[in-house]
Amino acid sequence: LAGAGMQIARCAPSSRAFIVTVPPVSRRYGGVLQRSLRSMGYRVHRVLVPDGDATKSPRQLSKLWDELIRFGADRNTPVVALGGGMVGDLAGFAAASYLRGVPFIQIPTTILAMVDASIGGKVAVNLPQGKNLIGAFYQPRLVWIDTATLRSLPVRQRAAGFAEVVKAAAIWDSEFFERLERDAEGLMELDPKVLIPTLERACAIKAEVVSRDEREAGLRQILNFGHTIAHAIEKLSRYRGLLHGEAVAIGMLIAAQKSEQLGLSPAGTAERIRNLVVRFGLPSELPNHPRSAYLDALRVDKKMVNSKIGFVVLRGIGRAETVPLAPREVLPASRRRPGSSGA
Amino acid sequence: LAGAGMQIARCAPSSRAFIVTVPPVSRRYGGVLQRSLRSMGYRVHRVLVPDGDATKSPRQLSKLWDELIRFGADRNTPVVALGGGMVGDLAGFAAASYLRGVPFIQIPTTILAMVDASIGGKVAVNLPQGKNLIGAFYQPRLVWIDTATLRSLPVRQRAAGFAEVVKAAAIWDSEFFERLERDAEGLMELDPKVLIPTLERACAIKAEVVSRDEREAGLRQILNFGHTIAHAIEKLSRYRGLLHGEAVAIGMLIAAQKSEQLGLSPAGTAERIRNLVVRFGLPSELPNHPRSAYLDALRVDKKMVNSKIGFVVLRGIGRAETVPLAPREVLPASRRRPGSSGA
Repeated sequence: LAGAGMQIARCAPSSRAFIVTVPPVSRRYGGVLQRSLRSMGYRVHRVLVPDGDATKSPRQLSKLWDELIRFGADRNTPVVALGGGMVGDLAGFAAASYLRGVPFIQIPTTILAMVDASIGGKVAVNLPQGKNLIGAFYQPRLVWIDTATLRSLPVRQRAAGFAEVVKAAAIWDSEFFERLERDAEGLMELDPKVLIPTLERACAIKAEVVSRDEREAGLRQILNFGHTIAHAIEKLSRYRGLLHGEAVAIGMLIAAQKSEQLGLSPAGTAERIRNLVVRFGLPSELPNHPRSAYLDALRVDKKMVNSKIGFVVLRGIGRAETVPLAPREVLPASRRRPGSSGA
Repeated sequence: LAGAGMQIARCAPSSRAFIVTVPPVSRRYGGVLQRSLRSMGYRVHRVLVPDGDATKSPRQLSKLWDELIRFGADRNTPVVALGGGMVGDLAGFAAASYLRGVPFIQIPTTILAMVDASIGGKVAVNLPQGKNLIGAFYQPRLVWIDTATLRSLPVRQRAAGFAEVVKAAAIWDSEFFERLERDAEGLMELDPKVLIPTLERACAIKAEVVSRDEREAGLRQILNFGHTIAHAIEKLSRYRGLLHGEAVAIGMLIAAQKSEQLGLSPAGTAERIRNLVVRFGLPSELPNHPRSAYLDALRVDKKMVNSKIGFVVLRGIGRAETVPLAPREVLPASRRRPGSSGA
């Protein structure tokens, strides 16, 4: 993190730098980053936004615009997101839209943000009607990762981050999935010997998929494996209660079961996913909301085209594809615990 | 206009289409466009926003997002801007940001929008602190021009549109400038013999400059000739009173005078611009606000880099370039009428 200033100065030279972060991250790492930027000659303004996904709102976005103007940010001023995916998404859309786009830097401090949110250029805010409904495709100039910041990450957040790592393996790389099955406990302990290569591989998969389809015309949609249901869960919990990765774990399990039901994936695929996510301490039960509420939530899915959701299914571990399904088709038929048939 | 539906269906096939327009344009042309889209199978939703540049606000933007969701707009749903530059800018940024981007169609109904706003992909909304501070670079899939819509355009709006035509000629094409000097009165009468080739040439210049520099890294900045001062004027009048093109006419004159003062442009350049804009019935006097107010307004110019404005000057008619100037350097020294020394 102390080296971030030098890297930022290389790709976004300017007289000012604008940091967006949340209070707990700011307390631990804000000072180091700020000193690093100041040592490179930047005048630095650090803006704190409230923690939690509810902060990804048009209202907070508008506040960032105002702060940018007050700070005198110009077209060269980098916006530096220091924190998790929420900070990156919010700060990223502020960077994308302020003056029609200023340099954007990602410094993710959670596993989730390192392997997923910070890579690929999707930035967005939520509306009350749904998650990430407003946003842009806007690539960061730099993604700077310091794994030391993970030491302070709560265990539950660690696990939630590994849900996206499991996803990357499930859709793209069966051998990587096997490595995760071998190393799950070591990863949860942040053992560098397994952690660093795992983060590298997960980042590489994301980058590989995105670079083949930056604008989500087709292939990139497979990254949404588990996310259709996850977004519905998060919407019904009003973005509180479950963490994003936890919702994704449940969503992956339901999607894998659906893949088996459709005859696309061999029997046992969902079971392998269930076993792995459970070892990371992730939940596997769909939260108890009325089926009609899930259907309503699914109907504002932004990947919906002509009333069908582009639903990501597996063709076994390591291969994914999209099938158009109506909202009622993506939900499990009964209120049983997903995966319970194989338990 | 009756043929628009067929063209839109070619480049943005979908089950729905979302029209954004203002009441006076909607009354005259909304029905024709809507029928044209319906005949191609689109379910159409027409949203009226208040006329006037004050509508380019985060609040109206937010309303459009809500309407898009309520209408069930998906990633394929085209947003069709029917109207002047304000409608195009607002609807364009809504299209750019909704679901991270949906198809966008421009149907400009003013000269200004035809030759300038609809071409080049700049979309934006204003903040109280300044014009176009929030936006994106987002190209329309189609720009559809029907010159018949100009018949209902008030004379003052016609003139304001020709200010951008004069600008295109002044920065890029001295021969075109001479044609304007020959045809000014015919253009104001919308004589098709001179109008159509003039609109074509102005559109071509804009497209040529933009296609060489879509993201405004350098060359594109010359399109801002006259606009630094114009934006300050508009800001001080709170986007009321003077029309954009009228403010641009004044801004071009001041910029041409500055070009002469800096020894970059031959004597008489400003005088030719003044004579031409006056023949279009455009103003040439800087509105009477305190110099300090102009300086404050100039300081939030979004082209500002390291406290200098990238100010566009002429090297004679037909050639432009950018020089970095402090805000106080771009204002005329005295409160005299710009251009009065040569009158």
